[in-house]
Amino acid sequence: MPQIWNFSAGPGMLPHSVLEAAQKEFLDYRGLGASIVEMSHRTHAVEAIVESLTEELRGLLSIPEEFEIFFTQGGGRTQFAMVPANLLRGKTGAYLVTGLWSAAALEEAKRIGRAEAAARTTGDVPDTSDLSWPEDPAYVYYCDNETVHGVEFPAPPTAPEGVPLVADMSSNFLTRPIDWSRHGVVWAAAQKNFAPAGLTVVIARRDLLGGLLPHMPSMFDWSLYAREKSMPNTPPVFQLYIADLVAKWVRAEGGVEAMHRRALERSALLYEALDERPDLYETTVAKRARSRVNVPFRLRDPERLADFIAAGEREGFRQFAGHASVGGLRVSLYNAMPLEGPRRFAEFMRAWRP
Amino acid sequence: MPQIWNFSAGPGMLPHSVLEAAQKEFLDYRGLGASIVEMSHRTHAVEAIVESLTEELRGLLSIPEEFEIFFTQGGGRTQFAMVPANLLRGKTGAYLVTGLWSAAALEEAKRIGRAEAAARTTGDVPDTSDLSWPEDPAYVYYCDNETVHGVEFPAPPTAPEGVPLVADMSSNFLTRPIDWSRHGVVWAAAQKNFAPAGLTVVIARRDLLGGLLPHMPSMFDWSLYAREKSMPNTPPVFQLYIADLVAKWVRAEGGVEAMHRRALERSALLYEALDERPDLYETTVAKRARSRVNVPFRLRDPERLADFIAAGEREGFRQFAGHASVGGLRVSLYNAMPLEGPRRFAEFMRAWRP
Repeated sequence: MPQIWNFSAGPGMLPHSVLEAAQKEFLDYRGLGASIVEMSHRTHAVEAIVESLTEELRGLLSIPEEFEIFFTQGGGRTQFAMVPANLLRGKTGAYLVTGLWSAAALEEAKRIGRAEAAARTTGDVPDTSDLSWPEDPAYVYYCDNETVHGVEFPAPPTAPEGVPLVADMSSNFLTRPIDWSRHGVVWAAAQKNFAPAGLTVVIARRDLLGGLLPHMPSMFDWSLYAREKSMPNTPPVFQLYIADLVAKWVRAEGGVEAMHRRALERSALLYEALDERPDLYETTVAKRARSRVNVPFRLRDPERLADFIAAGEREGFRQFAGHASVGGLRVSLYNAMPLEGPRRFAEFMRAWRP
Repeated sequence: MPQIWNFSAGPGMLPHSVLEAAQKEFLDYRGLGASIVEMSHRTHAVEAIVESLTEELRGLLSIPEEFEIFFTQGGGRTQFAMVPANLLRGKTGAYLVTGLWSAAALEEAKRIGRAEAAARTTGDVPDTSDLSWPEDPAYVYYCDNETVHGVEFPAPPTAPEGVPLVADMSSNFLTRPIDWSRHGVVWAAAQKNFAPAGLTVVIARRDLLGGLLPHMPSMFDWSLYAREKSMPNTPPVFQLYIADLVAKWVRAEGGVEAMHRRALERSALLYEALDERPDLYETTVAKRARSRVNVPFRLRDPERLADFIAAGEREGFRQFAGHASVGGLRVSLYNAMPLEGPRRFAEFMRAWRP
C-alpha cells in the first residue's frame, strides 16, 4: 500500500510526533496512574495544561495582555451565535460575506439581533476602503479563510474607526501572525490546525467582554470563560491536552512565521500545477485571495471526477473531494502536512490525463 | 508504588480495555492510514461510529423507537439552558431540587423563561405524591443522581398526568435500566460512565422536539441534532469513538442490569464501613436516597481531613476529596471501577484511626 496523504479539510491531519506522544502516555499520564481522559479538570495536572496552552498561544501569536484567551465547546456554528450574543448590545453586526461560512455566520446573527452584509463577494475578498457600513456597527465580521471556497484574506480588512474586527480563523489559525491592533476578537474551531474536533479558542479584547444579551444562556457568556479560566464547567480535557502539544510543536518547528512560509510553499505547488493546465483544471478564485490552506478546483470535464478521485486514491491521497455544497475537488494543506504531500499531488495532477 | 485507584467524580475512570484498544489503533484507525481524530466527520468511518453508538444505546437501554438519540457539546450547564429553550413554549418548568446540579438547572431555566421549584430537599428525594405543581407545567425536571451531595432517586419521581419527566442522568447513565414510559427526555454529560469530557447524549421523545424558543441560537435546537444525525456541524469525534467502545464494553459485561448490580455491590461496601463507625464518619443522606455511584461523607473530626487524605493517597487512592462547594470526602464508583477499589477503601476506612 502506498503512503497515505490525508488532505481532509477537517477534522484534519495533526503532527505525527504529537499523536505518537499522546499514544505513548495514553494509559498513564506522566506517571499519575490514570489516562489524561480520566483526570478531573480540577486536578493540578489538567489546570497546568490549560495554563501552559494559554501561555504557548500568547507567545506564539504575540497576544497582548489586554486580550483574554479562553476555550469553549460547540464549534464554529456556536460562535456564529456567541459573537452577536456578546457584542451586539443593540447595535448592528456588519458582515463581509466571502463564502459559505461567513454567510452562515450572518444568518445566525440575524436570529440573535440586527446584522447585515456590508459586502458580498464570490471568489475574492472585498475592497473595504469604500464600503457603506451600517449606521451603528457593533463590529465588522469576516472569515479569514473560507474553507469551502478557498478564499483567504491576504491582509485583515479595514473596519470603520473604533469598530472592532471579529475574525473567524478556524482554518488558518496558527498558520501566520495576527495583527492584534486591528482585531477585537479572533476565534477558531480547533479541528484544522490545532486539536481534535470539540474545542474552540476565543481571543477577545478584555473591554469587549461582559455584554451578553439578556435571556441568552449563561454558557454563551464569553466573560464567564475568561473569569473561570475556561472552566465554567468540565472542559474537553483531551482536546486541550492535544492542543497544548500542538502549540509546543509549532514553537519547536519555528513558530507561526515558519508555518506561514510552509503554507505558502505547499499551496504554491498546487496553484502552479493548476495554472499550467487550464485545459484540464479550473480554479475561480482571484490570485490575491487564493487560500494557502484549502485549494479547491474543478475538472474542465466534470464527467471525469470519479476517475480522478479513484486515480488519486490509488496514489495514497485521501479526503480530497470538494465540499458537498460545491462539489469538485479540494486539497487541504494544514500545518501538519509535509511539503512532500502537495509535491506528490502536483505531480499527479501533471501526469493525469482525462 | 501501590496500584492507583481513581475515585474521581468526573472526568472519571474508563474501562481499561477500552483505553488499551483506543491506544493501540490511535495512529492508524482500522488500517485507514490516519488517526480517528484526523478523519473528517463526513467519512463513512465516522458516520459508522455514530450509527453504531446510537444502536448500541438503543439496545442497552431498550430505548423505544419514538425516542430520538443524539449527541451535543457543551456539557451539563449547556443542557440546563437547552431543556427550557426546547420545552418551555410559554409554560412553566417544574423543578425537583435535590442538590447542587438541579438547583443550578433551575437558576439557568429562569434566565430562559418561567421555572420554579416544586420541591426542595436536602439529603433526600422528595415524595412527589402530594406536591403542589405549577398551573401549566411544561415538564418536571429532576437530577437522577446528585454527584456532589450523593443523593440518587431510587425510582423516577411521579409527574402530573401528561407532563413529561426530564432527567439529568449525567452521573448514573448506563448504570441501570431506564423506564421510558415515565420519561420525555433523558440527557447525560459523558464524563462519568460513558466517554471523555466534551460529549452529551440526549434521548428525547420525538413529539417533544421542534419547539425551540425564538431568538435562541440555532445550535440549541434539539430537533436539528436529531435531523442531522448529531452532525449539524463537526462533532467531537474522539468522544463519540470512545463512547461507542464503552457501550460495547457494557454490553460484553452483561448490560445495564449487570452494571446496576455492581453499582449496588460497590457502594454497599462503603456504606457498611460508614455505618459501622458513626464515631468516625458522618453521612447525612437518607438511606433510601443513597447514591450508588457517589459516596460523600465527612469525618467527625474535620481537623483530621488532611491526614485522612494523605493516608489514603499512600494506599494508592486518588481524587476522593469532596466537591469544593461542600468539602469533606467523596468516593465515586463508576461503571469502570472494579469491586476491589471500594473493598480496599472500606478496609482503609475500618483501619484508619484519627
